[in-house]
Amino acid sequence: MSTNKKLKIGLVGGGPGSFIGAIHLNGALMDGLFELAAGAFSSNPEKSKKRGEELRLNPSRVYSSYDEMFEKELQLPEDERIDVVVIVTPNNVHFDPTAKAIRAGFHVVLDKPLTLNYQEAKELYHIVSNSDRKFLLTHTYSGYPMIKQAKQMIEEGKLGKIHKVYVEYPQGWLYKLLEKEDNKQAEWRTDPKRNGMAGCMGDIGTHAFHLAEYVSGQKVEKICADLYIKVEGRPIDDDGVVLMRFENGASGVLMASQTDTGLENNLKIRVFGDKGGIEWQQEDNNSLIVRYPGQPAQIFRAGTGYLGSLAQENTRTPAGHPEGYVEAFANLYRNFARCIYAERNGETPKEEWKDFPGIEDGIRGMAFIEHVLKSTETEYKWTSFVVEK
Amino acid sequence: MSTNKKLKIGLVGGGPGSFIGAIHLNGALMDGLFELAAGAFSSNPEKSKKRGEELRLNPSRVYSSYDEMFEKELQLPEDERIDVVVIVTPNNVHFDPTAKAIRAGFHVVLDKPLTLNYQEAKELYHIVSNSDRKFLLTHTYSGYPMIKQAKQMIEEGKLGKIHKVYVEYPQGWLYKLLEKEDNKQAEWRTDPKRNGMAGCMGDIGTHAFHLAEYVSGQKVEKICADLYIKVEGRPIDDDGVVLMRFENGASGVLMASQTDTGLENNLKIRVFGDKGGIEWQQEDNNSLIVRYPGQPAQIFRAGTGYLGSLAQENTRTPAGHPEGYVEAFANLYRNFARCIYAERNGETPKEEWKDFPGIEDGIRGMAFIEHVLKSTETEYKWTSFVVEK
Amino acid sequence: MSTNKKLKIGLVGGGPGSFIGAIHLNGALMDGLFELAAGAFSSNPEKSKKRGEELRLNPSRVYSSYDEMFEKELQLPEDERIDVVVIVTPNNVHFDPTAKAIRAGFHVVLDKPLTLNYQEAKELYHIVSNSDRKFLLTHTYSGYPMIKQAKQMIEEGKLGKIHKVYVEYPQGWLYKLLEKEDNKQAEWRTDPKRNGMAGCMGDIGTHAFHLAEYVSGQKVEKICADLYIKVEGRPIDDDGVVLMRFENGASGVLMASQTDTGLENNLKIRVFGDKGGIEWQQEDNNSLIVRYPGQPAQIFRAGTGYLGSLAQENTRTPAGHPEGYVEAFANLYRNFARCIYAERNGETPKEEWKDFPGIEDGIRGMAFIEHVLKSTETEYKWTSFVVEK
Amino acid sequence: MSTNKKLKIGLVGGGPGSFIGAIHLNGALMDGLFELAAGAFSSNPEKSKKRGEELRLNPSRVYSSYDEMFEKELQLPEDERIDVVVIVTPNNVHFDPTAKAIRAGFHVVLDKPLTLNYQEAKELYHIVSNSDRKFLLTHTYSGYPMIKQAKQMIEEGKLGKIHKVYVEYPQGWLYKLLEKEDNKQAEWRTDPKRNGMAGCMGDIGTHAFHLAEYVSGQKVEKICADLYIKVEGRPIDDDGVVLMRFENGASGVLMASQTDTGLENNLKIRVFGDKGGIEWQQEDNNSLIVRYPGQPAQIFRAGTGYLGSLAQENTRTPAGHPEGYVEAFANLYRNFARCIYAERNGETPKEEWKDFPGIEDGIRGMAFIEHVLKSTETEYKWTSFVVEK
Repeated sequence: MSTNKKLKIGLVGGGPGSFIGAIHLNGALMDGLFELAAGAFSSNPEKSKKRGEELRLNPSRVYSSYDEMFEKELQLPEDERIDVVVIVTPNNVHFDPTAKAIRAGFHVVLDKPLTLNYQEAKELYHIVSNSDRKFLLTHTYSGYPMIKQAKQMIEEGKLGKIHKVYVEYPQGWLYKLLEKEDNKQAEWRTDPKRNGMAGCMGDIGTHAFHLAEYVSGQKVEKICADLYIKVEGRPIDDDGVVLMRFENGASGVLMASQTDTGLENNLKIRVFGDKGGIEWQQEDNNSLIVRYPGQPAQIFRAGTGYLGSLAQENTRTPAGHPEGYVEAFANLYRNFARCIYAERNGETPKEEWKDFPGIEDGIRGMAFIEHVLKSTETEYKWTSFVVEK
Repeated sequence: MSTNKKLKIGLVGGGPGSFIGAIHLNGALMDGLFELAAGAFSSNPEKSKKRGEELRLNPSRVYSSYDEMFEKELQLPEDERIDVVVIVTPNNVHFDPTAKAIRAGFHVVLDKPLTLNYQEAKELYHIVSNSDRKFLLTHTYSGYPMIKQAKQMIEEGKLGKIHKVYVEYPQGWLYKLLEKEDNKQAEWRTDPKRNGMAGCMGDIGTHAFHLAEYVSGQKVEKICADLYIKVEGRPIDDDGVVLMRFENGASGVLMASQTDTGLENNLKIRVFGDKGGIEWQQEDNNSLIVRYPGQPAQIFRAGTGYLGSLAQENTRTPAGHPEGYVEAFANLYRNFARCIYAERNGETPKEEWKDFPGIEDGIRGMAFIEHVLKSTETEYKWTSFVVEK
Repeated sequence: MSTNKKLKIGLVGGGPGSFIGAIHLNGALMDGLFELAAGAFSSNPEKSKKRGEELRLNPSRVYSSYDEMFEKELQLPEDERIDVVVIVTPNNVHFDPTAKAIRAGFHVVLDKPLTLNYQEAKELYHIVSNSDRKFLLTHTYSGYPMIKQAKQMIEEGKLGKIHKVYVEYPQGWLYKLLEKEDNKQAEWRTDPKRNGMAGCMGDIGTHAFHLAEYVSGQKVEKICADLYIKVEGRPIDDDGVVLMRFENGASGVLMASQTDTGLENNLKIRVFGDKGGIEWQQEDNNSLIVRYPGQPAQIFRAGTGYLGSLAQENTRTPAGHPEGYVEAFANLYRNFARCIYAERNGETPKEEWKDFPGIEDGIRGMAFIEHVLKSTETEYKWTSFVVEK
Repeated sequence: MSTNKKLKIGLVGGGPGSFIGAIHLNGALMDGLFELAAGAFSSNPEKSKKRGEELRLNPSRVYSSYDEMFEKELQLPEDERIDVVVIVTPNNVHFDPTAKAIRAGFHVVLDKPLTLNYQEAKELYHIVSNSDRKFLLTHTYSGYPMIKQAKQMIEEGKLGKIHKVYVEYPQGWLYKLLEKEDNKQAEWRTDPKRNGMAGCMGDIGTHAFHLAEYVSGQKVEKICADLYIKVEGRPIDDDGVVLMRFENGASGVLMASQTDTGLENNLKIRVFGDKGGIEWQQEDNNSLIVRYPGQPAQIFRAGTGYLGSLAQENTRTPAGHPEGYVEAFANLYRNFARCIYAERNGETPKEEWKDFPGIEDGIRGMAFIEHVLKSTETEYKWTSFVVEK
C-alpha cells in the first residue's frame, strides 16, 4: 500500500437520480486526494452498470451489491483495492454496509444521519468505536471555514460565557405532497421505513443540532420539542421547533422546516455570550458577523489572513473568491484524507485535520431524533437528553 | 371647535432623558396634523418646566401633574384646549392618566404595554371600550408600510392558508447589569414596580406578539413559554422564547431578547402559508420579500405603485427614498388624526385609516404577558391562551 | 421677535402634485422647530387656496404669488410674520424668489439646484453672500448621519490620503417618455426652459457631485463628461458619466442615470485612501462600511455611541431604529434652525450645526452643470473645472 | 485513445506559491472528467519535482520544462499520454507553450490574458484558429451560472434593447508596494516584463471587459480610458476607468482597481435595456437580480427549475446550496471536456457546452489592453476600438 497514492473510493449508492452521491464525489475529487475506483451504485444491476459508465469507471469494478464489492475488492492486491467506502444510500441502508465495511477493514464515509433508528445507532457506535478504521459522518455544514472560525473563537473565549444558541434550517420544498408526484428524494425522505421516524427533524434538524453543539462547544441536556405535519397525508413531521438547555445553563432554540414555502436552504446560526455574539448563514457562507457591545459589527471573511488556524486549514481560494457547499464537503474529505495519510506515514496529524464529524456526532444525532420524538409525545415541557451508548 | 385646526397634544411624561417621548413628538408633528399645546412632562415641577422650555411651549401650558393639566385645560375655551393626551410614562403610570383623560373627554395615545398588570388592563379595557373617545396604543411596528402590505396580502389569501409564523425581536443592550450604571431606561424597565412582572417579554415580546397576530390575521390559542434571566442579579426576564398555536392550527415561534449581545433592534417576521411566504425585518424596513414556490423571490418595495391600499396610505416618499421608524410612528398618528377629523366632519373614514392598534390589542398584549409568566411556571408544555375582559 | 418661538415658514411652491414640497414640510416640522405660517403654493390662486386648506393654514396667509406673500408678511408684526422662506418650485423659479426673499430680510431654504443656469447662479451668489440672512440649499443626502460620519472620519485622516471617489446615482423612472404621459414631475424635469440644460446631471448628478466633494473633502479640478439621451425624443440628457480629478490628485467617477430601467434611488458613494476605505448607500442609509487592509470590515451604525460628533448631532433614534430620507431633510432643517436660534440668542452655534449646504455648494453645483455640458461638447478628454463667482 | 477515459492533464506552471494553478486543478478535477497526469511545474527542476510529489504524481511524468514534457509525452502510447495542456504561468510564458502544445496536437487550457502583448496575441490567434485543437481561455467569471442566465435572458430579448453596461472589478490588495515585500504574486503582476504593459487593466480589467461583452452580447467600438498609478514607485497602472461605446449605441463604464483599499474581489455587472435590467455581483454569485419597471425586483437563484438551459447546464447543487468560484472554473472545464468527448464520440455537443471562452475572446482582451494604453496616452476623448487579427 503506497502511502502517497490517491485514496481509492468504493461508492455505495449514488445511482441515477441521486443528488447527494454526485456532491460527495465533487467534494472528494476536488483536491486530488481521492479517486473513484469502484462502486455498487444501485441494487438494480443495470442501473449500477449505467452509472458506472457515466462515471467512467472500469466495468470490472462496478458491482451489483456492496457485499459483492467488499468481497471482490478484498481479493485485489492491496495496492489496487479500495481504501475508503463512501455510503450515500437512504437511511435504512446505513447500518449494514457501514458495519460490514468497517469489519472488512475499510475506512468509511457515511452520509448522515447515522442509522435508521436509535437501536442500530447504539450497535454501530460500538462497531466503529472499537475499530481502528477512520469514520467520517458528513455533517457538511461543519466543514464551512467560517463555521470553524466561529467554533474556534468561541473555544478561545472570544464571546465570553455562552448563554444562547439559535439555529434554524428552513426549507420549503415539501410544501406540498411532492412524494406523490414521482419525486424520488421526497419519496424516501417521507417514508418511515427508509428514512426513520423523524422526517424534517431527522433530515435537517440533525444538521442543525450538530451545528449548535459543534459551534457552541456545549452539549444539550434537556429539550422541549414541538413537531408538526403541515401537509395533510404525510406520515412524518415536516416542520418543528426544539427548545434546548445546554450543560452550562445556556438556552437554545432550534427551528427546522421543509414547509416554509418558497425557502431554499438558508441554514443560520447565532450564538451569544456575555462578551459578544456571532452570526452565520449559509446564503452568505464566506462571511461571519462578529459583534461586541459598543463597537461596529465586524465581518470576518473566508480566505483572509486574520482568521484562526481552523478556518485557515479549510479554505483554498483567496478572500473574495467565494467557496461554497461543495468545498465544505471537500474540507471534510480533505481532513479525513490528511488523517489517513498521516497515519500511513507515521506522522502526527494537525489538530485542525482531526476536526471532522465522526461516530460520537452520529450517536448524538440519533439520540436527538429519539428525544425529539419522545418530547413531542409527552405533555411535559422538558425531556432530559441522555445519550445511551 | 374648528374641524380643520391641528390637533392639540397634551403630553404626559417625556421629561429630560426620555427616549420615547421625543420620538412620539417627531412622529406626531411630521405631517402637520398635530401640535404640542401642553405638557406634564415630569412629576418634578422644575424638570417639567425645563422640558417645556426646550419644547418652546407657552409656560402657562406646562403643568406639574397630569391631574393639573386635565383640570386647567378643561377650563380653556374648547378651541384652545388640548384634543389629545399622549402618555409616554413608565408602565405603572399608564392606567391612571389614561382613565382620567378618557373620562375628561380627551382622545388618548398611549405607549405600550397597556398597563402595569392584567388586572389594570381589564379595568381599563372597559373604560376605553365604553367611551366614544379614540384610543391609539403605539405598537409602532404595525405602522410600517411593508408590514401593512404583508397583512393585506395575507388577508387577500395571497399566501394561501397560513401555517407558520416566526417572529423575533433580538436586542443586546441589557447584556450586562446596566440598571446599576445610572441608565434610566434600564432602571425602570427592569424594575417590576414600574415595568410590571415581565421584563423583556413585556417590553418587546408584546410588540412581537402583536405583530404576529396583526400580520397573520390569526389569534393565538395556546402557548409554551420559556423565559430566562441571563444576567445575574436582574429581578425579571431579559430573554425568552414562546411557542404558539393559532386558532386555525398554525404554529408559531416568538423569540425576544435583551441579552443577545451586540444586537440592536432587528425585529423580524416570517409567515408561511401553503401557497407562499413573506419575510420582513426592521433593518430593511422598506422591503418585503415575497416567495412563491418555483419562482424567483420578489422584493416588494415601499413607495411603489404596485402595493395594496394599506401600504399606499402609509407612505410619504417615492420608492427608494427610505422611510423608517419615525415614519412608522407618524403613520399611526396620521391614521388616528384622520379618523378624528372624519368624525368631526361627519365623514366616513377610509378602512385603511382605521387600521391602528387600540384597546383590543392592548388587552391581548397584557394577556400575553400574563400567560407567558404562567406558562413559564408550569411543568406542562401547553397553556391555553384566553383573554378575559 | 421672541427668540424661543418656532420659526415661521412661508412656502413658495409645493402645490397639488408636488412631491418635494410635502417632504420639505415633513422634515421641517418633525423636530418642532418650524411651523408653516404662510404660503404661495401655486401661481394659480385656486390651487394655492386649495393647498392652503389641505395644510390647515389660516386663509389670510395663503397668497397668490410670492411677491404678494413677501409684501403682506412684511406688514405683519415682527412677531407674527414669517421668518424663513422655503422655495420648492421648478428651477426656473429659484432665482427670483430667493433674491427677493433675501432682500426682504427673510432666511431662505431653497431646493437644489441653485438656479436655472450658471449666469443666474453667479448673480445669486453675490446677493446671498453679501447678505446676513441664512441660506440652506437642500442637498439632502449630506444630511444623513452616516454620510456625516464618513466625512468626519476622512477629515480626521482615518482613511489616510484620499485617492479615489466613486459616486453613483442610478434611477430608472425615465426609462420611457413619461413626460408625454401627463406626469408633471417628468414634464418639467425634461423641459430645458423650466429645468435648465442638464437633465439627469442637473437633477441628480449635482447631488452626487455635492456628495463626492462633501465626503471626500476634496474639490474637483478637471472633468471628462459623457452624457447621453437614452430615450428617443427627449431634449436633454437622461444618463451620463463624469470622470473627475481632484485638487489633491485623487481620481473620481460619477455616474448618474434616470434610465437604468427598474432602479429606484440607490445613491452610493465609496471613498478610498491609502489607509482604508468607506462605502455607503442610501438603501442601507443607517450603515457605513469601513474597511482597513488585513482587518474585518466594520459596520458603523447610526445611533451608536462610538460615532463622531457630526453623526451624533444628526440622529434622533437609538441604533437599530432606522431613520431615513425625511430625517436627512430634518437634519438640514434642524441645523439651520439651531444656527438661527443661536444668532438670535447671541450664542455661538456648535460647529456641527453649521454643517449644512449653502451658497458655496450652490455655485459649485451650477459650475458642475456648466462644465459637464461643455465637456460633453468637446473632443478633448479633460476640461478644467473653474468656478467663476 | 479510449473515448471514455478521463482526460489527462499536463500542467505547465503552478509550482510552489502559485495560487491559480491549484484552483485550476480543483476546478478540473471536481467533476471526475480530468486527471492530472504530468507536469512541468517550474523551470527549477527541484521545485518541479517537489510540486509533483505534493500532487501525488508519478515522478516519471514530472518534467523540468514544457518542452521536455511535450517531447516525452508524445513518446508515450496514445492511451497514456496527456490530452490537454493546462498553462498557468505568468503572461510572458503564455505564447510559447500554447503555440507548441497546439502544434504538438494537444488541447490547451490557458489562463488569461492571452499573451504578454498584442503582437504575440495576433500571432497566436492564427496558430490556434488554424488548428483543430480545442482551446479554453479561463475567463472564469463567465462560468458562473447566474452570469450565464443573464447572458441568455439578454440574448432572448428579456431586457429589450440594451443601452447601458456597468462593470466594476475593485480589489484593494495592492494598496501598498507589496511587490517590495517578497510577495510573488505582486512581483510578477507589477513587472512589465512578465505581466505586460497594463497592470490592473491587464489582470482584472480584461476580465471585466470580457464579462461586459459576454453578458450584453454587444461588442465595444470606442473607448475612453483613464489609468492611474496610485502607489508611488509602481511602474504600471493599478487603477483605472474606461468609458465604452458599443456597436448598437449602448454606453458602458468599466472600473477596475487594485488599490481600492480594503476591498476583496467583488466583481459586479449591471446591464440595462429599455425593458428591464439585471444586476450580479460575485459576493452573492448564486443570485441574479432582475428588474422590470413597475414590478417587484426578482431574485433569480442558481439551482432552480425556472432558469434557462445555459444556467441549468452549469450547476451541480440544488438551490440554496451555494456554489462558488471553484465551480465557475469547473463549469468551464466541464464544458470544454464535454466538447472534446463529443468530438471523440462523433456526437454533436449541446450549444450550451460550446459556451466557453476561446481564442476570439483572447484576441479581444489583448486588443482591449492595447487600446486602453493608447487611449490613456492621447488627449482626445475617444479612441476607436478595432481588433486586428
